[in-house]
Amino acid sequence: MTELSAIRNTKADTIVTARLAVATSGEGFFEITAEVKRFLKQISARDGAVLIYLRHTSASLVIQENADPDVRTDLVTALRRLAPANAGWVHDVEGPDDMPGHVKSMLNGVSLQVPVEDGDLALGTWQGVYVAEHRATPHRREVVLQFCGACADSNTARD
Amino acid sequence: MTELSAIRNTKADTIVTARLAVATSGEGFFEITAEVKRFLKQISARDGAVLIYLRHTSASLVIQENADPDVRTDLVTALRRLAPANAGWVHDVEGPDDMPGHVKSMLNGVSLQVPVEDGDLALGTWQGVYVAEHRATPHRREVVLQFCGACADSNTARD
Amino acid sequence: MTELSAIRNTKADTIVTARLAVATSGEGFFEITAEVKRFLKQISARDGAVLIYLRHTSASLVIQENADPDVRTDLVTALRRLAPANAGWVHDVEGPDDMPGHVKSMLNGVSLQVPVEDGDLALGTWQGVYVAEHRATPHRREVVLQFCGACADSNTARD
Repeated sequence: MTELSAIRNTKADTIVTARLAVATSGEGFFEITAEVKRFLKQISARDGAVLIYLRHTSASLVIQENADPDVRTDLVTALRRLAPANAGWVHDVEGPDDMPGHVKSMLNGVSLQVPVEDGDLALGTWQGVYVAEHRATPHRREVVLQFCGACADSNTARD
Repeated sequence: MTELSAIRNTKADTIVTARLAVATSGEGFFEITAEVKRFLKQISARDGAVLIYLRHTSASLVIQENADPDVRTDLVTALRRLAPANAGWVHDVEGPDDMPGHVKSMLNGVSLQVPVEDGDLALGTWQGVYVAEHRATPHRREVVLQFCGACADSNTARD
Repeated sequence: MTELSAIRNTKADTIVTARLAVATSGEGFFEITAEVKRFLKQISARDGAVLIYLRHTSASLVIQENADPDVRTDLVTALRRLAPANAGWVHDVEGPDDMPGHVKSMLNGVSLQVPVEDGDLALGTWQGVYVAEHRATPHRREVVLQFCGACADSNTARD
């Protein structure tokens, strides 16, 4: 049923942190895979993992298919069905899209980690990393990127 | 569309683990942000990340708005709609609130990481960390807190 | 309300990565707890955390009750209700079970971390780690296991 691969070891003691600002244009999925890969290249990352953390409560982080854009259309539809607007929410002072946004953010989450191998994200073939915007209007969303592991360039990676 | 900030580097090789017991009073959200911050202060944490892990299957961890309490009321309502009691569950020996609790725990999750900068959680302005209790009656819930990163006080933080 | 335990410190700088292939037999939950524990034993892990990462978009990772199998039956039912087949999805070229699979994968997530203490997973009494297969037919799923922490055997664990 299961099978384990060869094992890779690294001596790793470097933590590198930056913040990524993402401008969304309203409800939908905004891919940041290329930005995360660029960050890893810039810091000469080797093996480890990158923590991706979203500092908001009405948007979320999602790893999903980056091939057919229809998938993201359907994901937005699915989230609307799970957390509809005008569903008798008590908290409605910030508009009909706000409380559904909180529910969607809770379900999807705002914190995820992706393993890094040889300086690149160990994503599956069809996986991309997305900021899912749940508000109707454009927002500026802030993402913390934090690599923990080994870097090739010790001058860059250590203090 | 996106913009990367300045980058911070740390040489970090300390892992500090503790367990936090949380007494819940039944269904609802119980904030533990202050407890996690206190843990980070106590161990003189600097840069890194804290893993927050809940050792249960009918409660969950949620990062959500800590301003208007109506938001948490609506989140409880939303979860009840997504996983109603008396919905023909096969597993009903532990009461009508048990199986819905498992569903809610699966959707929200029990494992999350928050980046730590200068010894404090890098939460967004409106974010708090909550244990979401999905059972009707009070429970004692156990949370593992594990900081990985650099600590200021090497006597405390290293063995 | 809350109570913090004694604190454990470790000097930890080892990252060990492997991939686990999991053969699923179609929709359902497939436990990998024993495989993750075996990996930790094989690398002489001590304290730290293991990142479990699934490289797919129509399956997910779930930590849930491993006692009564009825719970997993009900979890499958719950997911089918939340993301039904034939619900007017735009993306339907890969079969009626594909788009619901993407929704379930988004809700459950594909990335989680479990703390490791004394070389063993710090799971709760009733917790098991599962690959949740959301497609109707058997699939080969790939999981990245990455331990970050201290290992007892420095020859094995460091380069």
